[in-house]
Amino acid sequence: MDLSGTFSRTSNSMKPSVIRALLKLVQQGDIISFAGGTPDADLFPTDLLAEISSRVIRENGRFSLQYGETVGWMPLREAVAAELNSKGIRCGSENILITTGSQQGIFLSGLVLLDPGDAVVVEEPSYLGGLQAYRNFSASFVPVPCGAEGLDPAALEEALAAAPSRPRMLYCIPTFQNPGGSTIPEARRPAILEVARRHGLVVVEDNPYGELNFSGGAIRPLKAFDEDGRVVYLGSFSKIGSPGMRLGWVCAAPEIIARMTMAKETTDVCTDVLSQAIAAEFLKGGHLARHVARLVSTYQGRRDAMLKAMDEFFPPEATYNRPQGGFFVWAGLPGGFNTVELFEKAIQAKVAYVVGSAFHTREGQGLNTLRLTFCTVDEAKIREGIRRLAGVFKEALQGEKV
Amino acid sequence: MDLSGTFSRTSNSMKPSVIRALLKLVQQGDIISFAGGTPDADLFPTDLLAEISSRVIRENGRFSLQYGETVGWMPLREAVAAELNSKGIRCGSENILITTGSQQGIFLSGLVLLDPGDAVVVEEPSYLGGLQAYRNFSASFVPVPCGAEGLDPAALEEALAAAPSRPRMLYCIPTFQNPGGSTIPEARRPAILEVARRHGLVVVEDNPYGELNFSGGAIRPLKAFDEDGRVVYLGSFSKIGSPGMRLGWVCAAPEIIARMTMAKETTDVCTDVLSQAIAAEFLKGGHLARHVARLVSTYQGRRDAMLKAMDEFFPPEATYNRPQGGFFVWAGLPGGFNTVELFEKAIQAKVAYVVGSAFHTREGQGLNTLRLTFCTVDEAKIREGIRRLAGVFKEALQGEKV
Repeated sequence: MDLSGTFSRTSNSMKPSVIRALLKLVQQGDIISFAGGTPDADLFPTDLLAEISSRVIRENGRFSLQYGETVGWMPLREAVAAELNSKGIRCGSENILITTGSQQGIFLSGLVLLDPGDAVVVEEPSYLGGLQAYRNFSASFVPVPCGAEGLDPAALEEALAAAPSRPRMLYCIPTFQNPGGSTIPEARRPAILEVARRHGLVVVEDNPYGELNFSGGAIRPLKAFDEDGRVVYLGSFSKIGSPGMRLGWVCAAPEIIARMTMAKETTDVCTDVLSQAIAAEFLKGGHLARHVARLVSTYQGRRDAMLKAMDEFFPPEATYNRPQGGFFVWAGLPGGFNTVELFEKAIQAKVAYVVGSAFHTREGQGLNTLRLTFCTVDEAKIREGIRRLAGVFKEALQGEKV
Repeated sequence: MDLSGTFSRTSNSMKPSVIRALLKLVQQGDIISFAGGTPDADLFPTDLLAEISSRVIRENGRFSLQYGETVGWMPLREAVAAELNSKGIRCGSENILITTGSQQGIFLSGLVLLDPGDAVVVEEPSYLGGLQAYRNFSASFVPVPCGAEGLDPAALEEALAAAPSRPRMLYCIPTFQNPGGSTIPEARRPAILEVARRHGLVVVEDNPYGELNFSGGAIRPLKAFDEDGRVVYLGSFSKIGSPGMRLGWVCAAPEIIARMTMAKETTDVCTDVLSQAIAAEFLKGGHLARHVARLVSTYQGRRDAMLKAMDEFFPPEATYNRPQGGFFVWAGLPGGFNTVELFEKAIQAKVAYVVGSAFHTREGQGLNTLRLTFCTVDEAKIREGIRRLAGVFKEALQGEKV
């Protein structure tokens, strides 16, 4: 069968992920990779999850191996609601939908909130998977440039004023942003919601990294400041437990939960019940706080090692921020430099990053930027990798001067 | 926030599943339910899966708890390809995509193959979840009436000739159909594909029940007769292993697999890796044949008990087929009777079914039909439940005569 002409316009518009292609390239043994944002597998709570999995099947297999309710496994919904209350989000299990990873939460928010061509306001740079999810609904994007302090209410207001059509939704990652490493200060968060209220935007708050907080103080999610049910909050088990167990959650007004649940049923009936049952036991057993403390200690050490090496090796022309948590440092060279072109030189120097342009809504934007993750490499290798990258930068900067 | 006006047209067009609502109603202890098509939890291979799950986490947690490739866990793709080859489908792992249940396979086939408004040819009656999945893409339906021998090539040709626009896809469940219990005879299968070829249709073959074969002979899937890569085959772990582990698979031409994989990445990144790793060990360990033999023996006994009770108790005006496998018997009363109206009387008589109209593409069709499952009730209860239902039927038939 000749398949040309067979595929939908949506499929024809999809491009293979730059990042996925790139990750395959950098899986050579001697390259120090700051590219992939996957958790360090050495930190998985393996023995504990092995014990729990065997137990929830043996003792409760009639339910943990059976179809479950589309909205989610009640003990997990309750445990998630309890966790969110401890972060300042007032909610009950009726506000919680369990999803197949938080990526599905993003996708379902598009399915129930976007008509073809609707505009979505996004941070620039933003999470590539978020942009790709909304492209399924032929969304157009209204990008708001973000610095080290993330989305700024005034910049948001300005972008909305200049938008060609009234956007329907704001998608944002306010805390330890991927890829930007930025965090919106708590004091600014109510103002973001106020702008959203004035413009009638639903706010999708994606918060997979919120628990990986090195700042010493609590940072309440946008949802904690939500007074009129405007915020659709997305959480994830991927960074605090296991990403292979595909578990995310939505916390939102019951009417939104009902709509997303009905939509989810048409896409995969329900989330993997076995993984839900395991995660529920993990959370209810009180293991999360201890496990997160271990993650924070390790990742914070690596963040420190990366910043220290940058301070020591990077040429003064290179910029970078100092993230308070999460997985990522955002860096840049002066305008005119192109990290796509430099990538090959970096690979020759045995170090890898993700080009910043991949996280922009339009071609040719952010060409001088890059994303570095400290999450999968040990401190000694981080130092060596940053030294190598600094060498690539210096050579490029000198080349320009010649 | 006032949520009216917030939701997408797609969301506004979704209706809560009649069946799900109904299933909640019939979960009272003394109702004998022939309604829900969930596998019998007593038959889950619980101890085996508990042992395997603990092992794949302990020995391989670095991978089984980590993000996986979107296309699926290679050992599972290989095991599925081997299984399908034993059913007459020539394929390799490059033809296999692992999905979050076969429902996701249906959804993704719509996402990559349908533009808004495209027509999909479907059997009537058909699987409600299939219809709902394609409605996400504003699909219109071209229904082909099906009897006990399923989709007929001549009827398909006739429906295509009468279709207002050229359909893009045929969605069908050729073997032990849900809800119809019908099976397309092997000898007719090449002719179905020939009609599809002539009309340029991609064929989505949904085969979750194929292993539950009571007929004594092999029934090769449509895909086994596919000579030009036209058939997108969907398989499922739900009926042969565990539906709570949300695992399905697509077998198709590599170009279609590539498109569906790219689309899947935007919806949930990858299928639950832990469940994939468990299922791979289950299949590679050679447990499937023995386990399926046990399922077939139990479900066949129940099918026999249901048909025997129908032969004994049903009034001659009631019709029903004799399925060769799967979960479902399709039954009917003479035209003019309404199983929606009879449902309340059935509940009073402490027996439940699913109304046949739920599986039709248009309102008001199939009102005299109903679906009965024999999968979750033991043989003695099946006999008693059919006796009760026969009483409801007889009363209705007598009422008409008065």
